Amino acid sequence: MDNQSRQLLFDQVKKWILEAGGHIRDAIDEPLYIDTKSNPNDLVTQMDRNTEEYFAKKIRGKYPNHLILSEEGFGDEVESLDGTIWIIDPIDGTMNFVHQKRNFAISIGIYHDGIGEIAFIYNVMDDVLYSAQKGQGAFKNDKRLLSLENKVSLEESIVVLNSFWACENQVINEKKIQDLVKTVRGTRSFGSAALELAFVAEGIVDGYLTMKLAPWDIAAGAILVNEVGGITTKANGDPLNLLTNNTILSGNKQIHETISSQFVELKK
Amino acid sequence: MDNQSRQLLFDQVKKWILEAGGHIRDAIDEPLYIDTKSNPNDLVTQMDRNTEEYFAKKIRGKYPNHLILSEEGFGDEVESLDGTIWIIDPIDGTMNFVHQKRNFAISIGIYHDGIGEIAFIYNVMDDVLYSAQKGQGAFKNDKRLLSLENKVSLEESIVVLNSFWACENQVINEKKIQDLVKTVRGTRSFGSAALELAFVAEGIVDGYLTMKLAPWDIAAGAILVNEVGGITTKANGDPLNLLTNNTILSGNKQIHETISSQFVELKK
Repeated sequence: MDNQSRQLLFDQVKKWILEAGGHIRDAIDEPLYIDTKSNPNDLVTQMDRNTEEYFAKKIRGKYPNHLILSEEGFGDEVESLDGTIWIIDPIDGTMNFVHQKRNFAISIGIYHDGIGEIAFIYNVMDDVLYSAQKGQGAFKNDKRLLSLENKVSLEESIVVLNSFWACENQVINEKKIQDLVKTVRGTRSFGSAALELAFVAEGIVDGYLTMKLAPWDIAAGAILVNEVGGITTKANGDPLNLLTNNTILSGNKQIHETISSQFVELKK
Repeated sequence: MDNQSRQLLFDQVKKWILEAGGHIRDAIDEPLYIDTKSNPNDLVTQMDRNTEEYFAKKIRGKYPNHLILSEEGFGDEVESLDGTIWIIDPIDGTMNFVHQKRNFAISIGIYHDGIGEIAFIYNVMDDVLYSAQKGQGAFKNDKRLLSLENKVSLEESIVVLNSFWACENQVINEKKIQDLVKTVRGTRSFGSAALELAFVAEGIVDGYLTMKLAPWDIAAGAILVNEVGGITTKANGDPLNLLTNNTILSGNKQIHETISSQFVELKK
C-alpha cells in the first residue's frame, strides 16, 4: 500500500471509529441485551453486533473490494491474507463493557497482503485513541509514543498476566508461570486484550502473556507494538497466524526474549 | 463525631486533597527520585514524601489534637484508635506512579475512636474523587454510588486478585485460590489497593482478595465499601485491625461470605 492510499484510508477509519465510539457512549446507560457464546463467560451484547454492523456497512459501501474478518458474524469467510483485510473487534473487553461500562475498546487492524498497514484501538469511554500506520510510528491521541526501552530487566518489569495461567491448565506449564510471577516486579490484568497491547506499546507495562486470543483481539495491537520497536508473537516466539487463534507474547524485545526462552513451556 | 463537625472536616479534607493532587499532576513529567524500602519492589519516591509532608503540615497547623497514621514517616506513633486519626497513603500504587504515571491514588480515611467517619480516594490523573461520610453514602465525584447488589453469584462475578496468590506462598492455600480463579467469571489486577477498594464500592468489581495490606492502604476504602452496603474484613472474616497489616477480603455481602467460607484457607 503506498503512503498516500494508506493516509487516505487511515483518515477514513479514524472518522468512522470516533463516530462508532460516540454511538456507544450515547447508549452506555441503556439496558443491555446480553447473550453468551462458546461458554457462560463468553459474552456478547447487541452493542457488539450493532457496532460491527456499522463498520461492515460502511466498508462494503466505500471499499467493496476489501474483506472483513470480525467477531460477530458480519464479516467474510476469510481464508487467506491476500488483499486488503479489516480485522475488527467491535467491542474488545465485552465483560468489562457489561460489568464496568468502561475499560473496553474498538480494535481495528488493516492488513494488505499480510502486512499490517493501519491500526486503531479506541478506549471509548476514556476517549483515548491509539493509532499507527506502517513505518510512521504509533500515537496516543495526538502524542507520538516513544520507542520502547529494551534494557528493562525482568525483575523491574510489569507484565500483564491473568491469574488463570498461574493455575493448572492444559496449555502452558503453570509452574513456570508461577516462577515468572515471582520474578517480575508486578503483574496486572485489565480484561481487554486490545487495551493491554496498547499499554505495551505505550510502555506502561513491559510485556503481555496470554494463551488464547482471536485474530481480532490482536490485529491492531500487534501493529502498534511493532511501530514502537516491540514484538508480538505466539508465546513460544513463532510468528502469529492471523487466520486462527494464537497464544500471545508481546513486549519490548528483551522482555519478550527472556520470557519466551525461560518461562514458556507449552503443553501441546 | 457530630454531623456538623464531620461535614466541616470533610470540606477541609476535600480542599486539601484536590490541591495535593494538583501538585502531583503539575509535576508528573519531572524526573523521579526513587528509593526502595522493605524490598526492591517496595518503591517510594520524593513525591510520596512531599505529599505526605503537605498533609502533615496542614493537619498539625489546623487540627493539632488529631493524630496521623501514615506510610512515609511524617505521622505519629499511633498505638490505639482513641481520638481522631487521619490514616494517609500519600500515593497508593507507587509502582503504577513510577511505571505508568497514572492508576494511583491519594487515600485518606479519618477515624474517631475507631469509627470510620470520612473517606477520600483520589485518582489523581483521572481527576476522579471517591468520597464518603459515615451514614451519608458514598460518591464518585458528585454522583452517589448505588448500594451493592447482593444477589451476584460467584460464577458471574469479577474479583480483583493478583496472580501472586495463585502461586505457592506462605500465607494462603494456593490450591483453593486456583479453584476460586476457575470459578469466577473473571479476575482483574490494577495495582492500587485504594482504587481496587473504590472499584468494589462502585460495583464494577464484586470482590477483592489480597494477603497483606497496611492500614493506610485500606482505611478509606473500607469506609467507602461500608457506605454502599458491602463489607471489608480480614480474609477469614475477622474484623480489621487498623493498627497492623491485614489480610483483606472486601465485597458485596454474598460474595464476601462465599469466598471467605469456601476459598480462604490461611496457612498461619
